[in-house]
Amino acid sequence: MRNTQPTSATQSWTTTMSSLGTAYARVRAQTRELCRPLAVEDYVVQSMPDASPVKWHLAHTTWFFEQFLLKPGLADYRVFDASYDYLFNSYYDAVGPRHPRAERGLLTRPTVEEIVAYREHVDEHMQRLINRAGRDAQLDARIELGLNHEQQHQELMLTDLKHAFAANPLRPAYRAGAPRGLGSPTPLLWQHYPGGLQEIGATADGFCYDNELPRHRVHLEPYELASRLVTNGEFLEFVRSGGYATPSLWLADGFAYAQAQGWSRPLYWSTDLDALFTLAGMGALDPAEPVCHVSYYEADAYARWAGARLPTEAEWESAARLHALDGNLLESGALQPVAAPGRAALEPGPQQFFGDVWEWTSSAYSAYPGYRPAAGALGEYNGKFMVNQIVLRGGSCATPRSHLRASYRNFFYPQQRWQFMGLRLARSAAQ
Amino acid sequence: MRNTQPTSATQSWTTTMSSLGTAYARVRAQTRELCRPLAVEDYVVQSMPDASPVKWHLAHTTWFFEQFLLKPGLADYRVFDASYDYLFNSYYDAVGPRHPRAERGLLTRPTVEEIVAYREHVDEHMQRLINRAGRDAQLDARIELGLNHEQQHQELMLTDLKHAFAANPLRPAYRAGAPRGLGSPTPLLWQHYPGGLQEIGATADGFCYDNELPRHRVHLEPYELASRLVTNGEFLEFVRSGGYATPSLWLADGFAYAQAQGWSRPLYWSTDLDALFTLAGMGALDPAEPVCHVSYYEADAYARWAGARLPTEAEWESAARLHALDGNLLESGALQPVAAPGRAALEPGPQQFFGDVWEWTSSAYSAYPGYRPAAGALGEYNGKFMVNQIVLRGGSCATPRSHLRASYRNFFYPQQRWQFMGLRLARSAAQ
Amino acid sequence: MRNTQPTSATQSWTTTMSSLGTAYARVRAQTRELCRPLAVEDYVVQSMPDASPVKWHLAHTTWFFEQFLLKPGLADYRVFDASYDYLFNSYYDAVGPRHPRAERGLLTRPTVEEIVAYREHVDEHMQRLINRAGRDAQLDARIELGLNHEQQHQELMLTDLKHAFAANPLRPAYRAGAPRGLGSPTPLLWQHYPGGLQEIGATADGFCYDNELPRHRVHLEPYELASRLVTNGEFLEFVRSGGYATPSLWLADGFAYAQAQGWSRPLYWSTDLDALFTLAGMGALDPAEPVCHVSYYEADAYARWAGARLPTEAEWESAARLHALDGNLLESGALQPVAAPGRAALEPGPQQFFGDVWEWTSSAYSAYPGYRPAAGALGEYNGKFMVNQIVLRGGSCATPRSHLRASYRNFFYPQQRWQFMGLRLARSAAQ
Amino acid sequence: MRNTQPTSATQSWTTTMSSLGTAYARVRAQTRELCRPLAVEDYVVQSMPDASPVKWHLAHTTWFFEQFLLKPGLADYRVFDASYDYLFNSYYDAVGPRHPRAERGLLTRPTVEEIVAYREHVDEHMQRLINRAGRDAQLDARIELGLNHEQQHQELMLTDLKHAFAANPLRPAYRAGAPRGLGSPTPLLWQHYPGGLQEIGATADGFCYDNELPRHRVHLEPYELASRLVTNGEFLEFVRSGGYATPSLWLADGFAYAQAQGWSRPLYWSTDLDALFTLAGMGALDPAEPVCHVSYYEADAYARWAGARLPTEAEWESAARLHALDGNLLESGALQPVAAPGRAALEPGPQQFFGDVWEWTSSAYSAYPGYRPAAGALGEYNGKFMVNQIVLRGGSCATPRSHLRASYRNFFYPQQRWQFMGLRLARSAAQ
Repeated sequence: MRNTQPTSATQSWTTTMSSLGTAYARVRAQTRELCRPLAVEDYVVQSMPDASPVKWHLAHTTWFFEQFLLKPGLADYRVFDASYDYLFNSYYDAVGPRHPRAERGLLTRPTVEEIVAYREHVDEHMQRLINRAGRDAQLDARIELGLNHEQQHQELMLTDLKHAFAANPLRPAYRAGAPRGLGSPTPLLWQHYPGGLQEIGATADGFCYDNELPRHRVHLEPYELASRLVTNGEFLEFVRSGGYATPSLWLADGFAYAQAQGWSRPLYWSTDLDALFTLAGMGALDPAEPVCHVSYYEADAYARWAGARLPTEAEWESAARLHALDGNLLESGALQPVAAPGRAALEPGPQQFFGDVWEWTSSAYSAYPGYRPAAGALGEYNGKFMVNQIVLRGGSCATPRSHLRASYRNFFYPQQRWQFMGLRLARSAAQ
Repeated sequence: MRNTQPTSATQSWTTTMSSLGTAYARVRAQTRELCRPLAVEDYVVQSMPDASPVKWHLAHTTWFFEQFLLKPGLADYRVFDASYDYLFNSYYDAVGPRHPRAERGLLTRPTVEEIVAYREHVDEHMQRLINRAGRDAQLDARIELGLNHEQQHQELMLTDLKHAFAANPLRPAYRAGAPRGLGSPTPLLWQHYPGGLQEIGATADGFCYDNELPRHRVHLEPYELASRLVTNGEFLEFVRSGGYATPSLWLADGFAYAQAQGWSRPLYWSTDLDALFTLAGMGALDPAEPVCHVSYYEADAYARWAGARLPTEAEWESAARLHALDGNLLESGALQPVAAPGRAALEPGPQQFFGDVWEWTSSAYSAYPGYRPAAGALGEYNGKFMVNQIVLRGGSCATPRSHLRASYRNFFYPQQRWQFMGLRLARSAAQ
Repeated sequence: MRNTQPTSATQSWTTTMSSLGTAYARVRAQTRELCRPLAVEDYVVQSMPDASPVKWHLAHTTWFFEQFLLKPGLADYRVFDASYDYLFNSYYDAVGPRHPRAERGLLTRPTVEEIVAYREHVDEHMQRLINRAGRDAQLDARIELGLNHEQQHQELMLTDLKHAFAANPLRPAYRAGAPRGLGSPTPLLWQHYPGGLQEIGATADGFCYDNELPRHRVHLEPYELASRLVTNGEFLEFVRSGGYATPSLWLADGFAYAQAQGWSRPLYWSTDLDALFTLAGMGALDPAEPVCHVSYYEADAYARWAGARLPTEAEWESAARLHALDGNLLESGALQPVAAPGRAALEPGPQQFFGDVWEWTSSAYSAYPGYRPAAGALGEYNGKFMVNQIVLRGGSCATPRSHLRASYRNFFYPQQRWQFMGLRLARSAAQ
Repeated sequence: MRNTQPTSATQSWTTTMSSLGTAYARVRAQTRELCRPLAVEDYVVQSMPDASPVKWHLAHTTWFFEQFLLKPGLADYRVFDASYDYLFNSYYDAVGPRHPRAERGLLTRPTVEEIVAYREHVDEHMQRLINRAGRDAQLDARIELGLNHEQQHQELMLTDLKHAFAANPLRPAYRAGAPRGLGSPTPLLWQHYPGGLQEIGATADGFCYDNELPRHRVHLEPYELASRLVTNGEFLEFVRSGGYATPSLWLADGFAYAQAQGWSRPLYWSTDLDALFTLAGMGALDPAEPVCHVSYYEADAYARWAGARLPTEAEWESAARLHALDGNLLESGALQPVAAPGRAALEPGPQQFFGDVWEWTSSAYSAYPGYRPAAGALGEYNGKFMVNQIVLRGGSCATPRSHLRASYRNFFYPQQRWQFMGLRLARSAAQ
């Protein structure tokens, strides 16, 4: 799960925040801040097995610190509630049995108030642990892992809430949004990349998950990437031209799945194709905004329809690392992808590599050559999911800035689409 | 849904309460009273499609008055929220489309607070309607129906809550219970009934549902009924003797269902057969208490194992109407069946006809000869469910006293067991 | 399974056939005769779990004689193949484990030829048993049961074959049919029955299944029955008037089931409502023919649409026993219901009580008062199915004449419709 | 689907067979030969949706020639039966609608005899087409594709038959097998490969499928491969040490799937782990034989348990192309993997690259850089399956010799195991 150089692991955090204690406090406060607009009832529901209740996210991220830091690291620590190991373990078989994932939404107790108390209890002890003399690098690395873990769940809380609100015929808003434009999209340009022997994977200068390692060489043929994300307007053309009913555009599994589900448009689009559901409630469909909430199957079909393809993750990373890590991330407050800004003649380069939407690649999620999962229960963090899933890159409008990097590998099943997911086109270059 | 003699319909209520307005206030207050022990989170969940969230019960019973009384009856009435017709219609096709039953637990909004406001809004207008000059008998009958409807949902709220709490590994208690005894059961005696041409169905002296009409004649062969309900201790013998693994004791559908579900004991019994879950939390299994939370399939298998059978609903009603409507009902506060009291030599008669547990009969739920459902949407109240279900009789520890009568026909699917359901043995008399 | 008067049990057979040996030979030959039009491939498939392959029917009926007659009755009998107990036991738990019902169509072996050899082996030994001196009445009764059992399967073979052929886009014909008329239906008249205390159930003068006993009294209110079956033309009106899309006409379970299945017409009707699939292949929809292959749900909805209801089984039997047991049965060779003949002015009575289609009643299949299943494994023949099913009466165009009587109770689940099933209307008489 | 150099495409066939006409005759005869041991009943069944009836394989491979060769290529060709396009199209959306895959086993008609006639009809016309003057290279390439297609189905016929026979409690044998040894396995050695920039994909000297193109460069880190396949004996150790119950050895999806299916051993192994089902019936479990009928999930878990991993397809191909294409293929007649022969001191090299079992790689099935599917319907042959599947390499004991090459990419879902599937271990080399 993490870099093999633990001494350097906290560098990214210590660079941007004055200390690990501050970092801890900021990330945990960010989680609470995201809950501010919620009614108590909003914390309870689970709108599908893939999603979790907000209450569960709050407790699970806290349990992570209790289980992996406080229990092994604080000699006199007493667990807040012994039953929470069972209730709030997500998938760590090495820790023990756990409440079935699909039944997380049945738990009315512990109440939100009790979970807030749990968080405060753990926070207090975590600060003690952090401030303790003799803290070691491995402990620091685990704390950093726990903070990254919590940031992942910040994004999931928002996407799970969005899904739950969308399941409600009242279409409640999480919070009012900034006015969204209805601009015209920036033209799509093709950017050439020469390929050849490239290095991908995490570099040694900061935190990373174990699945980004080891950094290694890949050989790439010359390729081209679109200068921006595919837009709602472009995807609408695909929809209107009958894309969802044309099997030749789809992977066989994708077409079968889309038909079985009755899909005819991206998730959260209205039936009449002129509105979509956002965390600010229903809004107009902006043709210039990046298309969002499409599955891999839909992204792949769109690319084929457009005479292109999706990039591999190596192609994407080789291109993205040339750009500053900047964009419409959680900190922008938009909580919705936004249109690529119009470009001056002097800025012909690619846009939107980071933020807005996670970009589907064509790469199945698998181990890098020489990959070694972390020892113990934390080895379950990433490695055991390396089948049946597809890599996405670049972060979204719900990803915290400090959580992201060019080598970051997100992964979801090809049929999933409730995350902020979209796509950028690629094509092989003429040789 | 109701008696054809509307003028007499409210008689039962006016006998026990001073007026319909008072009755209305009391029933509605009873519902709120039942919610007193709950946290906000407890109102939201739906632990299976058969159950509903407490919040939904509160709103649906209110919607019933709004839809069937205030809208047609109060000229200037303005609906509280137009979207509630969709959200809180249960199954009235004639009223319009509705939120899917299995998704009632996904609705975090409207909040509990909003639904309480809805109840107050409707209560205020209902009192206006009740107090209005010129109220007619049909209106009164509908109000009485609405109150009976709400009482049905009071029982469902408790059984749905029990199911949700039981799904939580923390096994929370709804409220502390009175100490339960661990006595020895009263001996089971057989009571003879001569049968012959009998009349069953509702009599003209009070409210009834349409499915209790018309009162009509049936011919019964001589039969015998057990003097009390089957107890936990007796059922435990069935379990321990391998009853759940012996197909010859079961209906074929019942055995297949029990095997597919992995049933090996009544719902809410602990694995080691010495404890059970109640609304007061986990407690010891009292061998003298009536067995509860068994399906029709289990009740039928037990009866066959015991060399007996279940009574028909006509047999049950013919016997029960000879007894006073009294027993362990909602008003006792036990919220759990209790052991039949030991009998003095002077009281040799049958016990427990009313309250404790609904008693499974062997009768499929069907129309009485000459049955006519009510006109309009309210005709959907009972008639359209007359297939695949089995009649239960006698009320339970969660049934309000004023809601019950000897002719009352409750009905559930043969595999359902989350209601307070048990059984009394019957056998055909030697002729 | 059978009458308690074993000495009289074979009377019906000896009346129509010279001896039990002859009866045995005739029934067994009839089964083979029904297979004559088949290709080897036709014996193998199982088009749904409710159906069985022809090969399985041939073997199971033979196994019945081997298991219940030859093994206990013929001292030196050696079983043909020990594995057949597992393969061809249908549902007798007391006999032992068995091949899963839904996987009967996976068995390519034993081949048809081997099963024919099995039949011959058993036939030879059965004739020895029948001819043996000292045969007793109980044995005779079991043989008669075995023959009735085989006749039941003759009908099932035809309906299962019809279902399998209908699943084939080539729509093969079982055999060429007689030309079918396209006449106009006889007018529907209402026949009055006074009701009162009636006796129903099997009389003592011949074979019957145990579920027809004991004969007993029921009280009936006055009622009326339609003089003939509901026709295709009448049902077509229901279809065209939107009957399948009108929930108020349906039982709630029925509407939900029909919607989930996408039903919009009877089984085997063509999409454009002008043709239907028969055992002679596709043919024109004759408006005068009785409607066939409707489920209980559809029959019930049609009756409600028509302002009537279905008869109870007691009403049906009380009326039918007044008529001669005659009609369009297996012996007619039509294998399809036929229009009621036009009536002369002198024949105003009801028609089609026997043959054409099994008539759905409104009665759930349950035990008669005092019912006692047979002892041992044969007690599983009927009793364990007495839940969730509905009684049908009167036989069909695929029922052998000698198999039927007025007290005969057939039973199927309310959603099943692959048997020759139809309906006759009933209504309560004005009093 | 094929090489872009059509003139060279038939070279491999013309090298080994005197002409395309002879090749055609030989492949088609091979198919019939494989059917020789079957009873008519064996042609009909479909034991799971993944499998197809033999009858369907016979017809579909014939339809392929009719659809893609005779219809476009033979001006006066008349189709044998117009309905066969619907019945025997497998998955070509561009050709038109088709019979649902899961219902192939419901078709009793056309009979085997009719399908044999269909084959003869098409064979006759194909020979006319082949012998015709003016035949072009594109036509030849399509014929060769059709023959390779038929060879694929020869293997599927055998694995589908094996599955169907295994579903029969009688466990019939396809044909008697040669005596199988119970030897001790050859020791497992590790062979080093230096990696670096390698070329993989089909070379220009013969037929290949489109998914093997274009040949391209990949960069490999140094790696090691086991000198032989994993054996039954080795896998038995994994089973006995609790491998199936240890989640830490498995991919999360794999463990969940195995648990849901109740897997505790490879497909076709007996419960007591000492026998297995083969095409020759039940036989002893030979510890030296390659383990077979394991899914990707099981292969991956075994490799992790053994402290190794599966090879990538590039690693496998780079190693395998160094070896002669020889091994236990269809022509050996074994129809079962056999133990690796003991090795003389002079033969230290790797064994079993070709034949015995398809070897699971760790590579998700995806497009090679620059991949272009064939134009038209035949473009559906491979490309639309490039998601959710895993590549297997090397052929099996049911693969015809002339069908295989080092660049051949087979692919199945990670949970499938009814093919002859096994594994070879790999590990990354110390650098």
